[in-house]
Amino acid sequence: MNSKWTILEQKMREVGIQTLIITDPKHVYYLTGFLSNPHERFLGAVFSMGKQPFLLVPELDEENARASADIAEVVTHSDTDNPYEVLKKNLKSSVGTIGFEKDHMSVARFEQLQDSLSFARYLDVGPWLRQLRNRKSPEEIEKIRHAVNLIEQVLQDTLPRAAIGVTENELVAEIEYLIRKVGAEGPAFDSMVLTGKKTALPHGVPGSQAIASGDLLMFDIGLYAGGYASDITRTYAVGHLDEPLQRIYNTVRAANEAAIQAIKPGVSYASIDKAARDVIADAGYGPYFIHRLGHGLGIDVHEFPSVHGENELLLEEGNVFTVEPGIYVPGLGGVRIEDDVAVTASGVEVLTSLPKELTYL
Amino acid sequence: MNSKWTILEQKMREVGIQTLIITDPKHVYYLTGFLSNPHERFLGAVFSMGKQPFLLVPELDEENARASADIAEVVTHSDTDNPYEVLKKNLKSSVGTIGFEKDHMSVARFEQLQDSLSFARYLDVGPWLRQLRNRKSPEEIEKIRHAVNLIEQVLQDTLPRAAIGVTENELVAEIEYLIRKVGAEGPAFDSMVLTGKKTALPHGVPGSQAIASGDLLMFDIGLYAGGYASDITRTYAVGHLDEPLQRIYNTVRAANEAAIQAIKPGVSYASIDKAARDVIADAGYGPYFIHRLGHGLGIDVHEFPSVHGENELLLEEGNVFTVEPGIYVPGLGGVRIEDDVAVTASGVEVLTSLPKELTYL
Repeated sequence: MNSKWTILEQKMREVGIQTLIITDPKHVYYLTGFLSNPHERFLGAVFSMGKQPFLLVPELDEENARASADIAEVVTHSDTDNPYEVLKKNLKSSVGTIGFEKDHMSVARFEQLQDSLSFARYLDVGPWLRQLRNRKSPEEIEKIRHAVNLIEQVLQDTLPRAAIGVTENELVAEIEYLIRKVGAEGPAFDSMVLTGKKTALPHGVPGSQAIASGDLLMFDIGLYAGGYASDITRTYAVGHLDEPLQRIYNTVRAANEAAIQAIKPGVSYASIDKAARDVIADAGYGPYFIHRLGHGLGIDVHEFPSVHGENELLLEEGNVFTVEPGIYVPGLGGVRIEDDVAVTASGVEVLTSLPKELTYL
Repeated sequence: MNSKWTILEQKMREVGIQTLIITDPKHVYYLTGFLSNPHERFLGAVFSMGKQPFLLVPELDEENARASADIAEVVTHSDTDNPYEVLKKNLKSSVGTIGFEKDHMSVARFEQLQDSLSFARYLDVGPWLRQLRNRKSPEEIEKIRHAVNLIEQVLQDTLPRAAIGVTENELVAEIEYLIRKVGAEGPAFDSMVLTGKKTALPHGVPGSQAIASGDLLMFDIGLYAGGYASDITRTYAVGHLDEPLQRIYNTVRAANEAAIQAIKPGVSYASIDKAARDVIADAGYGPYFIHRLGHGLGIDVHEFPSVHGENELLLEEGNVFTVEPGIYVPGLGGVRIEDDVAVTASGVEVLTSLPKELTYL
């Protein structure tokens, strides 16, 4: 039983929870080392006070689970079993109060769980897991650093292909090929390459549009390597760039740098968001920065905490998150510059190393 | 307002629901034509009896939503808004009973919804959407047929690369490059290439293992094209194949064909599963077929219904699902052959066309 379970057991004792049923696949990975996508099937790490934890997995994942999980007991359910009844049979103590993740379990699953364990009381332990995962160990930060290095290598190897006439889709194909080639597990999200006026869409979808001279060209890409994610954005100019877009670029860059300068333990996430937002507002682009500054990064590419103007949580050493201010002017274009950062004992380590000055391709 | 809303409105009237709040992104796509991945942000299609539906989307998706949704009204929430309060303000009628999807909404979101709409009663309408989506229109089947054609082209173009010494990861990189190149949106799931004894893992993860002579080589791959998924599996022999593995191959092929022969409107999903399972059990491999026969296929790569031995739902014209029997013998190897099929007025159309006889690469 690793130290994470020990921390959870102490919390269980404090709050009076007898059993944990953890079903978010990423929480299960964090706690057991077994990473899987169970799709619609039930997957759970189950831990009763004072006992050894066990994994309840779909039958077809049994061999993988036994090979990779660092807990000894693996129980299976088949596609025709009711997994909640299998769970009930394998619980090692009286059920008492059950801790589960309210933000992950669906209402339908919760009702099935309650049907099977009808005398249990339920408490949300999602915040425990989020808090644990938010303080990354040096080993975890090393894995994220590695994932960042790989995606930067992918972007650098892609840029020579980004010539006038090449389409967004062609660059996405190249990027995703390189993501596999550098040895990553795969993209961390739908790779985004946008050109021209489409850069004004923060969630635009790459298509058959070709790069033209005078375009902005935006890459928002990331990958999973060793179970950890990277997520970076760089925006380039092709050939030349009109003055208004240059001004937008330099404003976003200044906002990105102001936010990074503000990062250290003990300040709030809200203050980091504000450091960037003030730069953009002062330049007159306030209404065009239409999303939060960033998000936590780790086993999930988007994870706790949300870096926005009303999050008064304080930064601690070991937090890892994205800093990604953007300005999006419909009909004109958009710029986003996204770094991945880790909070250190005294300040910040910027994991991203690609240049941020305006670069012409 | 399209005919899907009209069907839903009639059901709402029958059951006494005043308002629908649909939050599964794929259900939203099905109903409105707006496809997005909102990650942790709130996305909803909202429909009050007798009114026009509206979309509630994250602010940064507004332009995409307006461009692609076939409903007129788009309401936004920012990263610092409480989306449930925005929802409450925009509801166009007294709330009454609310229909939502129990299998998609998390317990945490449901509690937030209840906090904002405190006098509402709630009913699960997930089954309505699943039932609607399970009867594909000819246009939808054409899209799935196209997605199947594309993935078959990808597999055919990959096979010449599958030589002795090439690794699983290299083939995955090639496949995902080709998926983009043929014009698909991307893989429908983690592309799986397994070789040798790893084929005995139904959810094995591709790695640095190289193809050797005498190996089985399994491809389980799929893609999204035009918003619809394909999902196929073919297993090949490299060079030669030991007799026990040949026997396993031919048993799986016979099981696949027996299931397909049994498909027609009016029979149960359970009977289709049984047709395949009986062939495998009769050959003595019953304990090694450790998963259901298949799953629904459409906007989601895994969708309703589950094709297993206890599903007594009857097949109807327009249902589309996978037929994917497999035999997995630990330490020896595994074979799976997966086709995508559509139920027709009188029988079945097999959308997959790649050969199924044992093929040596």
